[in-house]
Amino acid sequence: MRHISLNRPFVVRSYASSWPASQLWSASYLSSALGTQPVNVALTPHGNADSVIDVGGKGEGKLFVQPYERSEPFTSAMQYIQAQELGGPAQHKNRPTRYLQTQNDNLRSEYTALFSSVPPSIPFAHIALQKQPDAINFWLGNSHSVTALHKDNYENIYVQVRGKKHFVLLPPVESVCVDERGVLAATYKPRQREGSAESEEKEEDLNNLIPHVTEPHTYTPFALWDPDTPPSDDRGTRFSHLSQPMRVTLDEGDMLYLPALWYHKVSQSCNEEGICCAVNYWYDLEFGGSFWSMANFIRGVGLLSPAKSGG
Amino acid sequence: MRHISLNRPFVVRSYASSWPASQLWSASYLSSALGTQPVNVALTPHGNADSVIDVGGKGEGKLFVQPYERSEPFTSAMQYIQAQELGGPAQHKNRPTRYLQTQNDNLRSEYTALFSSVPPSIPFAHIALQKQPDAINFWLGNSHSVTALHKDNYENIYVQVRGKKHFVLLPPVESVCVDERGVLAATYKPRQREGSAESEEKEEDLNNLIPHVTEPHTYTPFALWDPDTPPSDDRGTRFSHLSQPMRVTLDEGDMLYLPALWYHKVSQSCNEEGICCAVNYWYDLEFGGSFWSMANFIRGVGLLSPAKSGG
Repeated sequence: MRHISLNRPFVVRSYASSWPASQLWSASYLSSALGTQPVNVALTPHGNADSVIDVGGKGEGKLFVQPYERSEPFTSAMQYIQAQELGGPAQHKNRPTRYLQTQNDNLRSEYTALFSSVPPSIPFAHIALQKQPDAINFWLGNSHSVTALHKDNYENIYVQVRGKKHFVLLPPVESVCVDERGVLAATYKPRQREGSAESEEKEEDLNNLIPHVTEPHTYTPFALWDPDTPPSDDRGTRFSHLSQPMRVTLDEGDMLYLPALWYHKVSQSCNEEGICCAVNYWYDLEFGGSFWSMANFIRGVGLLSPAKSGG
Repeated sequence: MRHISLNRPFVVRSYASSWPASQLWSASYLSSALGTQPVNVALTPHGNADSVIDVGGKGEGKLFVQPYERSEPFTSAMQYIQAQELGGPAQHKNRPTRYLQTQNDNLRSEYTALFSSVPPSIPFAHIALQKQPDAINFWLGNSHSVTALHKDNYENIYVQVRGKKHFVLLPPVESVCVDERGVLAATYKPRQREGSAESEEKEEDLNNLIPHVTEPHTYTPFALWDPDTPPSDDRGTRFSHLSQPMRVTLDEGDMLYLPALWYHKVSQSCNEEGICCAVNYWYDLEFGGSFWSMANFIRGVGLLSPAKSGG
């Protein structure tokens, strides 16, 4: 409660070392638990799910592009992820990146066969927050996937099970640094071959994922700045250089309390089996009190400020 | 901890009913405990300690004026406070208002004879805040004193012992409503009679308290708006009318948690003995975490905004 009331991140090393998940979840265990059960797979050409891309030349136009989602048998999706990670460049040249990252409470639905390997809630979190988690999510991917800087309206308990996760963290007061803008929304889709129907989709179609603008046009507010890149005319604000990102790597068994509204960019490294696997618990944030209203006011001030670099 | 983390006020009715102070502190008990011991008394012409007054015609100039402080025997100061409250208008016409309100941890110094009547800390507060109080203050006055709207950098536990206190409360997010400005600082002093020395001060000198500007000139940031008065061209901002003050009256034995940085205006009513008496505990606020930095940023935005009424 003391930590959460400060809206300050912390890591407990080896917090989850004794969880059944930490003991059991090898690639072969996951295969035997889930088999060929269909799961939702996010496909992107460069591992960039939910990110802003430049189209039509730098500075000319931007799209907030969501991954192509597709149902695949669990085992083949995982084997693909492993092969891309462990194989040579030939294994992934021009081929899409796959990430199991549904974020819709998938550990209690798609991946329910794995749910008994983790606790149903995190004791310190439900005592402090006086609620049960809204969602418990299972994540499986490889080092090709990077989650772009964003924030969530949740208190987040993130537990690393296999491989490593690398977090870059910015507090909510740095909202003016992240260059949040409304960006035209799009979704990756396979390039349609002449005369083929969607049902005939083949593996090679997935090597040509093209952003399709969402109809009707929708603008998604999103952070454009990458905290691993100096601010430029194109991305970042005149305050970005003042940002003081925190960086932390979670090893297997480590737990991160990622406070509500903190911006985070996440990249990952695989274990020797070529997988990176994590579980996270989302608890609704406290909308009463001063935090939510103050943080939103500050974000609003940033959005109104003449904040472009060079501006 | 849950309440304090929300920065949200609350009252516990009859919290202190069983305190020795609640049982013992009659005017005669206070007299016998403190007798003619000298205490610091704040004198003002109109009960307006630490307030902003207009000088040289409305809108022309303002002073932030502090009370005239003077050492007096406790019993005679209290008797004066009682007589002003219980006597007819003749008792206080042109005569100053007295308030025992040193706010410098006086219950553990000037009023140490009374300290055993109250607990040395408030259990829930020192458990939640993990610290002991920085100051414990004793307050004794009558209905002529009003404390103008202001905020403190403290978590405040306010306990009413005799009479009533009437609080008007505004949250920190309403800082843009209070019309904070730097105001030239002054102190009330008795008008000096021709040829008299300060040591010869007489009671009638105190009927002519005049603000003396502090040298060298100092500007004290202070809230000009009175939340009991509609905003005007002279006091208030174009946001003041949006303020939603909370009002609460403390009866004898009641406790108010007054969160850090909440603006408060305080007036008071006396008991049948003609006194109003309270004790408060100040705990240092938590400067880590998000609260302090966010609240100060918001205050800064308000100070920079073109916020005058009619502006």
